[in-house]
Amino acid sequence: MSARLDQQFAFLNEADRLKSVLRANTLCDGSRRENSAEHSWHLALYALTLADHVPEGVSIDRVIRMLLLHDLVEIDVGDVPIHSANGTAHASEATAKAEQQAATRIFGLLPPDIAAQFHALWDEFEAAATPDAIFAKSLDRVQPVMANLASGGGTWAEYNVTFDQLETRVGMKIARGAPRLWDWVREKTLPWFT
Amino acid sequence: MSARLDQQFAFLNEADRLKSVLRANTLCDGSRRENSAEHSWHLALYALTLADHVPEGVSIDRVIRMLLLHDLVEIDVGDVPIHSANGTAHASEATAKAEQQAATRIFGLLPPDIAAQFHALWDEFEAAATPDAIFAKSLDRVQPVMANLASGGGTWAEYNVTFDQLETRVGMKIARGAPRLWDWVREKTLPWFT
Repeated sequence: MSARLDQQFAFLNEADRLKSVLRANTLCDGSRRENSAEHSWHLALYALTLADHVPEGVSIDRVIRMLLLHDLVEIDVGDVPIHSANGTAHASEATAKAEQQAATRIFGLLPPDIAAQFHALWDEFEAAATPDAIFAKSLDRVQPVMANLASGGGTWAEYNVTFDQLETRVGMKIARGAPRLWDWVREKTLPWFT
Repeated sequence: MSARLDQQFAFLNEADRLKSVLRANTLCDGSRRENSAEHSWHLALYALTLADHVPEGVSIDRVIRMLLLHDLVEIDVGDVPIHSANGTAHASEATAKAEQQAATRIFGLLPPDIAAQFHALWDEFEAAATPDAIFAKSLDRVQPVMANLASGGGTWAEYNVTFDQLETRVGMKIARGAPRLWDWVREKTLPWFT
């Protein structure tokens, strides 16, 4: 039992490093860049708060579990922003491979049964093929939009993003998992670009 | 539907401010103080990772929901540290009253049905009387201990905390919800004080 707890706490201490991984967007008040740990908390709160907008068959508790785990690979790989000079890296094969290696290393700190369970949840999120993962991915795209809106433009201004680009890179993915959410977000966002 | 989403996002944007509430303890690497949003994420991950150590009857998904919400009142009230010059404020009636008012204001941004649900979960956590809340409270005490241990003493050094004080203020509350966890943490912690 003690050896098992040693492994569980080795993982939990390693996870602490996600608090030092910075994302492209800022907090809503623009005061500093957001880190991936507080982003993960915010997304889980999004899931809990927006549970009445989920498509049938989605389990909010599974979505929350996925969102708590989804960015841990960034401890090794860093955050790859959607809107940036190297935005094409976002979906590159090299990034995907590095993230898989990171997942193996980080979840590998855990006892094998928990490692397998967490790695499977993370794989499911990445593949974005199940209703739970598709909804989780939608929330992951909504939250930075809200931060950009609240902070006066954020990464849209920084990288001269057009509304068409936003709709392609972000809107279509939000709409895939949560069409009603995108309708609302789209309406709030459009005036900023026009 | 749109008015409902307006309320849900007013709450989610307000929640962003928890990322700017600083706690007494630092990150594990000692680089800076931890904020209450990333702390809440870490605790939810603690719950998910340590799920095999819960007493019978505890629902990990309910524990996670509580932990996601538990510190939101600090947006208005701030974090009241356990080990500090004004440590007695931690459990004072004035603090409890201010936190209730904060809960009413912050959850009150939401549509009434969600506000009632979140406020009830937060009340349950604060009362620490159900198995879910008792376990959630235990985790809330374990995580700063691990941060102090990893960072070389942290708030124990800052406030000249003795092992007896740690056992009274923290250990007994961890043991109440998770006796096996406290056995393990106690063994790791004792050498620091001796």
